[in-house]
Amino acid sequence: MALYVIFFFHSGSISSVSIHGLRSSEDNMALRAALRNKGGLSGLLSLSSSSSHVRVCVSPTLVTQQRNNSTSPKIKVDFDQSTGVAMMHMQSPPVNSLSLDFLTEFCISLEKLEMDKSCRGLIITSSQPKVFSAGLDIMEMYGKSPERCGEFWRAVQEMWLKLYSSNMVTIAAINGSSPAGGCLMSMTCDYRIMADNPRYSIGLNETQLGIVAPFWFKDTMINTVGHRTTEIALELGLLYNPSEALKIGLVDQLVPEDQVLTTATQTMTKWLAIPDHARQITKSMMRKPTIDKLTSNREADIQNFVSFITKDSIQKSLRMYLEMLKKRRS
Amino acid sequence: MALYVIFFFHSGSISSVSIHGLRSSEDNMALRAALRNKGGLSGLLSLSSSSSHVRVCVSPTLVTQQRNNSTSPKIKVDFDQSTGVAMMHMQSPPVNSLSLDFLTEFCISLEKLEMDKSCRGLIITSSQPKVFSAGLDIMEMYGKSPERCGEFWRAVQEMWLKLYSSNMVTIAAINGSSPAGGCLMSMTCDYRIMADNPRYSIGLNETQLGIVAPFWFKDTMINTVGHRTTEIALELGLLYNPSEALKIGLVDQLVPEDQVLTTATQTMTKWLAIPDHARQITKSMMRKPTIDKLTSNREADIQNFVSFITKDSIQKSLRMYLEMLKKRRS
Amino acid sequence: MALYVIFFFHSGSISSVSIHGLRSSEDNMALRAALRNKGGLSGLLSLSSSSSHVRVCVSPTLVTQQRNNSTSPKIKVDFDQSTGVAMMHMQSPPVNSLSLDFLTEFCISLEKLEMDKSCRGLIITSSQPKVFSAGLDIMEMYGKSPERCGEFWRAVQEMWLKLYSSNMVTIAAINGSSPAGGCLMSMTCDYRIMADNPRYSIGLNETQLGIVAPFWFKDTMINTVGHRTTEIALELGLLYNPSEALKIGLVDQLVPEDQVLTTATQTMTKWLAIPDHARQITKSMMRKPTIDKLTSNREADIQNFVSFITKDSIQKSLRMYLEMLKKRRS
Repeated sequence: MALYVIFFFHSGSISSVSIHGLRSSEDNMALRAALRNKGGLSGLLSLSSSSSHVRVCVSPTLVTQQRNNSTSPKIKVDFDQSTGVAMMHMQSPPVNSLSLDFLTEFCISLEKLEMDKSCRGLIITSSQPKVFSAGLDIMEMYGKSPERCGEFWRAVQEMWLKLYSSNMVTIAAINGSSPAGGCLMSMTCDYRIMADNPRYSIGLNETQLGIVAPFWFKDTMINTVGHRTTEIALELGLLYNPSEALKIGLVDQLVPEDQVLTTATQTMTKWLAIPDHARQITKSMMRKPTIDKLTSNREADIQNFVSFITKDSIQKSLRMYLEMLKKRRS
Repeated sequence: MALYVIFFFHSGSISSVSIHGLRSSEDNMALRAALRNKGGLSGLLSLSSSSSHVRVCVSPTLVTQQRNNSTSPKIKVDFDQSTGVAMMHMQSPPVNSLSLDFLTEFCISLEKLEMDKSCRGLIITSSQPKVFSAGLDIMEMYGKSPERCGEFWRAVQEMWLKLYSSNMVTIAAINGSSPAGGCLMSMTCDYRIMADNPRYSIGLNETQLGIVAPFWFKDTMINTVGHRTTEIALELGLLYNPSEALKIGLVDQLVPEDQVLTTATQTMTKWLAIPDHARQITKSMMRKPTIDKLTSNREADIQNFVSFITKDSIQKSLRMYLEMLKKRRS
Repeated sequence: MALYVIFFFHSGSISSVSIHGLRSSEDNMALRAALRNKGGLSGLLSLSSSSSHVRVCVSPTLVTQQRNNSTSPKIKVDFDQSTGVAMMHMQSPPVNSLSLDFLTEFCISLEKLEMDKSCRGLIITSSQPKVFSAGLDIMEMYGKSPERCGEFWRAVQEMWLKLYSSNMVTIAAINGSSPAGGCLMSMTCDYRIMADNPRYSIGLNETQLGIVAPFWFKDTMINTVGHRTTEIALELGLLYNPSEALKIGLVDQLVPEDQVLTTATQTMTKWLAIPDHARQITKSMMRKPTIDKLTSNREADIQNFVSFITKDSIQKSLRMYLEMLKKRRS
């Protein structure tokens, strides 16, 4: 069953990758250049705020501007000024794979919301059917130069760092399957509501593909479900259906599929009743040690990923895996 | 519901504070002076043991002596020499708020029991109806000088350090609600028995008041209920009813209200069947890293508390909160 | 009930000890000498591999060779080359007490399997009725020289280090009671399947005997069942029946007694479906901090054990305990 889900998702990944490879917007290249610097996106955004078309704000015009690029935006943000709550829709067909482009756009959107003091809460959800996010785009790890792999990995780190340390209340409205990086993204949030559909699954299934979740994926999972559950989940690459995920504490609440967003919105109201400063200090106190571990080992973690993923044996595994997926699809 | 409980308790706190402000016994002033020294109470007690009226012992005369002071004792200790078990009744009306006076008296009683080799077990309970302890006395944080705030915080630290590292078997007989500092006190014990009354609640609800539980409150809770439950409990300032508290492991056992003390006594017998030295070494092994963290950061933690609590914004929050309570009561 | 189990096991220990004391094979003396060196068994085995009769391999001839010694082997290994799975039967009557001889033989068998690349999985079980392992042999701690006690403790450390860091998938097929060191051994495995017989029990019950589980026993248990459950389990020396053990996560699965081995074999197949390198890196990531703590404190831990166990008061406790056991048996 677990394998079925992987195949399903990554067959999606492949078709999405065939698109990714063909395009590259100047905007994203500049943003990636910024990500290469230690300051992350902050540096870029403070720079860009002096130019009119990348202003640090969240508005319908942002979406319009991005549509003016050669590609459709992968992230759509609806911000309700009256409640202070932003709803972030991941809309990268078919399965919201976390490609470099996706992550770059995701981090920009997040940074903007973070800097907008009127935005206090963020709900993350998917516009794609049946899937929240299929996780890291396998094509970003296959046949790429070490430099490009490093760039990709830095973007994955950036997403995690930004989400896990967000001052906003963050709620994952998990309206579909959420393996690997999708599960990581969910775990960074303050609260997880999942659609109670037994066909959906969630978990860090990296070992099933012959790759390894890095230490900060592991730390995030230990913080969520404890040491022993993490050990068995990571060693076997387990994917859990919603009721199993609820039982081990990987998600906090199950609701019928059509109530995921309304429940997320209601839950947000409860969280926003707590004074921001007290909640933020508390959240930082809980998460800072875990965040500091990556921050102070970031370059080593990138080198570690690059040297692992570019190994002949790992590349061969990925190639065989991809070929198998192609056969399945045809 | 959570707010109801807070209002209830702190309306109590206020009335108790109006009494506290008016008195000051020489004894307590000397004890507070001792608390200011790094050695804590130990220094004082070794000094005081040479004078007859503060001898390091636990006896009915202690209670009598304290009654001779201008104020009633806030702590009553019944020590059963035949079993080696002391029962500590908190009796500070109306809700056993942890004021500086209360904490000072509490720590003295505890130190005496700790130094009495014939005392092997301690049961902590409340003589007040419906409440175990309402937690830190909010009036000790409002409108006080930084020096006094620091003095108060050192006493809170001292209570925690003494209880969490006690060589005695400590059992909390939680016969009423136990928010904030009352919950902390309960969590320091080796075992928690709570009255199965759905109107009672327990939890660290600091964020609901706009203040923040410090890192050693957090560490104690993580050691008790794990990382994820602590994260959500602290960020939302959750108060749990007894059955919820049992489910997450915040208490170990629920019994009908009139059986709390007898169950505590029976449970103590089971714990005392274990050889003291083996149990004490084991307890120290489990708790020492957590204790060391505060011990080596004690002054910084005090400064941190004082600079936070004396902020204009926090003082304003507390004032508004107190005014709201007054209105509610009239 | 807990005490009943201890008596039962240690009455077994005694009878086994009366045999142990009488024999000493040259082989084991050489192995112990090797254990004294920092390199552990590795040094010896690489040395021995140049001589024909202690070759680093696992084969029926090993068992035969050992039978040629004056004593029966305490460990029997069946290795199925077709599946890559070894089944290790502990067969040291009556209760698989972890004596120095037993541990030495156990570590040699383990080291051989570890170095055999064709061996990917290990199932550990007992050939003795009603007991998996009764834990550390109490006779190794009573009336022995400090040097000998240190030698024994180093062997206990070695067993734990080898098992907890094994590259193989390790499954404990717990077909009987498993107190103290037997519980430790079980907890080092990747998965624990226990016979669903309410007369069996498992736990770290050291404090009930007046001794203390060292920090790495404690760390292993925290990694398995969390901090709070470990605290109460260790302080009270609790032994859990199978359903209790399942509930707290001390074992992963219960099956009828006659299905323990078949279930272990089926479970192994599932684990071996995961690519070895990914699983091994993941396992190491989960366990390395815990392992490093002992590795870097190994000598201090030995000195700590020796100075504790050779204390007059502890030796007196052990003597009284042993005399009580003798009376019970007669």
